[in-house]
Amino acid sequence: MKFSPLVQELIQSLKCLPGVGAKSAQRMAFQLLERNRVGGKKLAESLALAMEQVDHCHSCRNFTEQDICDICASPKRQENGQLCVVESPADVIAIEQTGEFNGVYFILMGHLSPIDGIGPEELHLDVLANRLANGHFNELILATNPTVEGEATAHYIAELAKQHNINISRIAHGVPVGGELEYVDGNTLSHAFSGRKNYL
Amino acid sequence: MKFSPLVQELIQSLKCLPGVGAKSAQRMAFQLLERNRVGGKKLAESLALAMEQVDHCHSCRNFTEQDICDICASPKRQENGQLCVVESPADVIAIEQTGEFNGVYFILMGHLSPIDGIGPEELHLDVLANRLANGHFNELILATNPTVEGEATAHYIAELAKQHNINISRIAHGVPVGGELEYVDGNTLSHAFSGRKNYL
Ligand SMILES: [Zn+2]
Ligand SMILES: [Zn+2]
Repeated sequence: MKFSPLVQELIQSLKCLPGVGAKSAQRMAFQLLERNRVGGKKLAESLALAMEQVDHCHSCRNFTEQDICDICASPKRQENGQLCVVESPADVIAIEQTGEFNGVYFILMGHLSPIDGIGPEELHLDVLANRLANGHFNELILATNPTVEGEATAHYIAELAKQHNINISRIAHGVPVGGELEYVDGNTLSHAFSGRKNYL
Repeated sequence: MKFSPLVQELIQSLKCLPGVGAKSAQRMAFQLLERNRVGGKKLAESLALAMEQVDHCHSCRNFTEQDICDICASPKRQENGQLCVVESPADVIAIEQTGEFNGVYFILMGHLSPIDGIGPEELHLDVLANRLANGHFNELILATNPTVEGEATAHYIAELAKQHNINISRIAHGVPVGGELEYVDGNTLSHAFSGRKNYL
């Protein structure tokens, strides 16, 4: 005995969401079917559209439905000469909200994690290396999370960037060690930016 | 500064899922976009299909894409003469797995909760009353959760059913008081069924 085929399939599909197990998936399915068909249909449409049309910005790898994202497309941003490396699109939002930074970004979409099979290739560090080689950057700001993995990733990228005759800095540890960048309040993040130090 | 329009819309739509706030929705969106487009597309399709085609069984109100669900359509089940009232489709699965019950069900899709605006109408108790009036049932088994709300709902339905000259029973409190039916192990649930007592 199982749920009807379409309900069973919906529950199974919901389990692809991170942190959603069998019981949560059931609750989500019943909630949508019983109380929120409009929300469920909207979610189906948003998902289909995003999965189909959202890709990576050719320059910074942030998610965008354009070839080049708005930040990368801005001449003012390009002329600034600073390139900031972060782990996640949410970190870009957090940094933009401080108003401390007017350069461009590179989004790793993660950090080095050999145990999960995430190496330099998965973080597309070749794209970053090409930008450093071709670009007119005078500073590379390493704003990965202040975690063990984030520090290791910052170190790896710094080694990679050394050959390019560029100033390499790491945001100051005003941010709480062991925490994750996107949860830091704007004030702390501002201090971390202005207090950044030469890295290598 | 926000995410790109389609990403922003996806995050917003994911928040309609119960227990999913802004941060979880972001993580879900990034995870699907970065690591599981296939799963995301599959979820979009399952959702669209289920929201469009799944309705309530005309007889028991369980979710089904047919007019009448498989259990209600079974002549053997109909002839059994027992009607079991539960709160959720997951409870039906749990009871079926015990093999203790061969009658039909009525699924409330919740319990009485005046504070949330859920009264007899929202639980479609009129449909239940019609079945009791027209059906050939000799026993009504109240298998709502052993919580305060579940007990109140059982009591309300028992009062409603009294006029129909039908044996009314409540599953035994072998199930842990304060718990939820769908998490009870099959053995305990078997005992609760076989140890059921007359209710009114
Ligand atoms: Zn970009
Ligand atoms: Zn049915």
